[in-house]
Amino acid sequence: MYNINETIVALATPPGVGAIGIIRLSGSEAIAITDKIFKGKNLANQPSHTLHFGRIMDGNTVLDEVVVSLYKGPKSYTGEDVVEISAHGSQYILEQVIALCIANGAQMAKAGEFTQRAFLNGKLDLAQAEAVADLIASQSGAAQQAAMHNLRGGFSEELKGMREELVKFSALIELELDFSQEDVEFADRSQFYELVNRIGATADKLIASFKLGNVIRNGVSVAIIGKPNAGKSTLLNALLNEERAIVSDIAGTTRDTIEETLNINGVLFRLIDTAGIREHSSDAIETIGIQRSMDTMKKADVVVYLYDVNETTPDEIQSQVSTFEGRQIKYLLVGNKIDMAAAAPSANSIYISAKNKENIQQLRQALYRLVVEGDINTEGTIITNARHLASLQEMRKSISDIKAGLDNHIASDLIALDIRRCLFYLGEITGEVTTEDKLDYIFSKFCIGK
Amino acid sequence: MYNINETIVALATPPGVGAIGIIRLSGSEAIAITDKIFKGKNLANQPSHTLHFGRIMDGNTVLDEVVVSLYKGPKSYTGEDVVEISAHGSQYILEQVIALCIANGAQMAKAGEFTQRAFLNGKLDLAQAEAVADLIASQSGAAQQAAMHNLRGGFSEELKGMREELVKFSALIELELDFSQEDVEFADRSQFYELVNRIGATADKLIASFKLGNVIRNGVSVAIIGKPNAGKSTLLNALLNEERAIVSDIAGTTRDTIEETLNINGVLFRLIDTAGIREHSSDAIETIGIQRSMDTMKKADVVVYLYDVNETTPDEIQSQVSTFEGRQIKYLLVGNKIDMAAAAPSANSIYISAKNKENIQQLRQALYRLVVEGDINTEGTIITNARHLASLQEMRKSISDIKAGLDNHIASDLIALDIRRCLFYLGEITGEVTTEDKLDYIFSKFCIGK
Repeated sequence: MYNINETIVALATPPGVGAIGIIRLSGSEAIAITDKIFKGKNLANQPSHTLHFGRIMDGNTVLDEVVVSLYKGPKSYTGEDVVEISAHGSQYILEQVIALCIANGAQMAKAGEFTQRAFLNGKLDLAQAEAVADLIASQSGAAQQAAMHNLRGGFSEELKGMREELVKFSALIELELDFSQEDVEFADRSQFYELVNRIGATADKLIASFKLGNVIRNGVSVAIIGKPNAGKSTLLNALLNEERAIVSDIAGTTRDTIEETLNINGVLFRLIDTAGIREHSSDAIETIGIQRSMDTMKKADVVVYLYDVNETTPDEIQSQVSTFEGRQIKYLLVGNKIDMAAAAPSANSIYISAKNKENIQQLRQALYRLVVEGDINTEGTIITNARHLASLQEMRKSISDIKAGLDNHIASDLIALDIRRCLFYLGEITGEVTTEDKLDYIFSKFCIGK
Repeated sequence: MYNINETIVALATPPGVGAIGIIRLSGSEAIAITDKIFKGKNLANQPSHTLHFGRIMDGNTVLDEVVVSLYKGPKSYTGEDVVEISAHGSQYILEQVIALCIANGAQMAKAGEFTQRAFLNGKLDLAQAEAVADLIASQSGAAQQAAMHNLRGGFSEELKGMREELVKFSALIELELDFSQEDVEFADRSQFYELVNRIGATADKLIASFKLGNVIRNGVSVAIIGKPNAGKSTLLNALLNEERAIVSDIAGTTRDTIEETLNINGVLFRLIDTAGIREHSSDAIETIGIQRSMDTMKKADVVVYLYDVNETTPDEIQSQVSTFEGRQIKYLLVGNKIDMAAAAPSANSIYISAKNKENIQQLRQALYRLVVEGDINTEGTIITNARHLASLQEMRKSISDIKAGLDNHIASDLIALDIRRCLFYLGEITGEVTTEDKLDYIFSKFCIGK
């Protein structure tokens, strides 16, 4: 599918009306194609990393006044010649400019093709390339930090370290095979055993980090459940209000994306809209067996169970909630309306006044603690990608096989096979071992223009 | 409201997820503020019009890897120092970078403030600045061309020519006032009369162009009306289908904006969704008096009246349509399903087969001719802005007053007053005469970041 001889073009900025729209070209003809439609300085003669004002011409018609950014390969995102045309942000004009680039020899870029070229040209490894997509999709500080750690090669470095040590032992063991008649051991078995243990522990640590990584990357869905008039809407607003202040000045449309999400210590909590439940199954708690309520709760990672402390005691709620137990749903019992009556303290409940925004911060922290144990250390590597997890799990199996082989003193050639399998799965993560189909699949999940 | 000492910041690209998002800063501190958060080369020491790769740092945290575009004033869009930060297109990251700029001394830009600064710094006159907003909003070739003509100063040049000649005569006539005792005429009255006629004719031409200009800028709304099974949906698809092919390759989201619009010779026709009418008032023609159908038709600039040639003759339709006459609604009678029966030719109708896409091109041209007489010459100036029209109309009144004054040999001082009034309205268009309130109002209609 990938043809390095083609020069590709795509809109790199989000579609819609804005002040500026950027059209990106990459490939050996990127500069020549732009020169054909750009009236200004001759770009081929200009140094890399410079900006040039001029006009995009469709024959004699001035399509737009633009600024062109010039990057000469290999000092560019893709490693190839790259031109970015900064035009006025009219969808019409941007489409016309793209059509003009295509008419002059460029091909429409496929999703992720710019980053795929960066990978194929050795500017990024596969784990870093995937971090680019994660970075663009990041909606919280923790997700952004984890992606940035990976983009900067933190994860790759860790894998590279394991890989290099394994390769060294692999070479020694394979050497033994050549001298198999002589029964020599070039590879120190106790050193190797220690290495295998160390790699196994690192893999275990990385695999374990996925639980948090998944929370960081995909956020946590929260269903707020409760009887009518328990104060669900008021709580929703109380939780969201604090959040809004920071971003309220920035562009109107952020509201839509922020609308029902909550950022607690850098982790994104998505509040599932339970309006439907609120309106139609008004007796949600009593009719807990109703499929609909159960479905919503099943979709949620966390359930916040809101009740009126003036109507119900924690013990009553606890007994109702017992239906949940064993369903793997994490939940918080939250007693509301403490402004109207002082509730007896209970270890099982958090007491709030949604109306007076009392103990909201305490509730936020409790929500956070429900999914994150300890602090998030984004300095270390956190696995956020299911593909990486699968490869690591396979690699971990090979490590166990190697270890069992050493314990049982099996033949070196069988151990060598296990090591190769282990290296294969490590290489799969960074893309040293991969197939074209797999690459196309991975990059097809990117957005166009990246 | 405007404070030239502030450095402003805003997102310049559309909100939403994309490969790239651009944050723009402008003002005396734009480079210094960026240097505080940018880890890479020291920007203050770099030449203008250069690109620099580096990292945006929030303390010790790497927020993103970015490319910074550096424009040193006055060689920039606003005429001030401008920095554009090209970051990964995550809404979260873009908000964080903007917040960081604000924390380091930038102010959130108001809508249109970048272009307002360009105007105040003399980079654009007011008519050109307004053309920037029109260019961004342009959805068709004619709208884009008219806006580009104005952005490049075509309109302003025309006004400037008139203004300069008027100023010359104004000076001579005001000189006469100083010598009013001596009854001299420095200003040649016949030359002046000729000039006034010429300016009047130019103003008339510009005012007349608004009819077309409005069509070009705002498009033409078209209601397709007809009995059920007349073939309205098929016609809609036939009209749209030809359109789609060109843009179908470019980004998924264009579909939404293109969905119900039709570009004929560069003019945008918006097809009003008459689905509601189609479903609920199935006897639209018979019950033509029904408020709902009438409302839809009143909203439309043009009505396409579709009927089945096998069921109705043009004469019958004509008599039904007579209810329309005098309502100022332009309409086309379109006989459909000629594939099923040959219809007798009629001067009043266009015959098509929506199913076989027969004569669709003829219908498109007829629609176009209904709103555009002759060809659109976007080389000449076309008034597209209601504010400009209002000023031109006032200016035209002053010209008539001057002419009447000359005819009646009224005193020079009164003529001088009329000339000043005429110059005032000319100056209002290009912004040479304006108030701060008016400016704020004009630019507030821009998008943020422009």
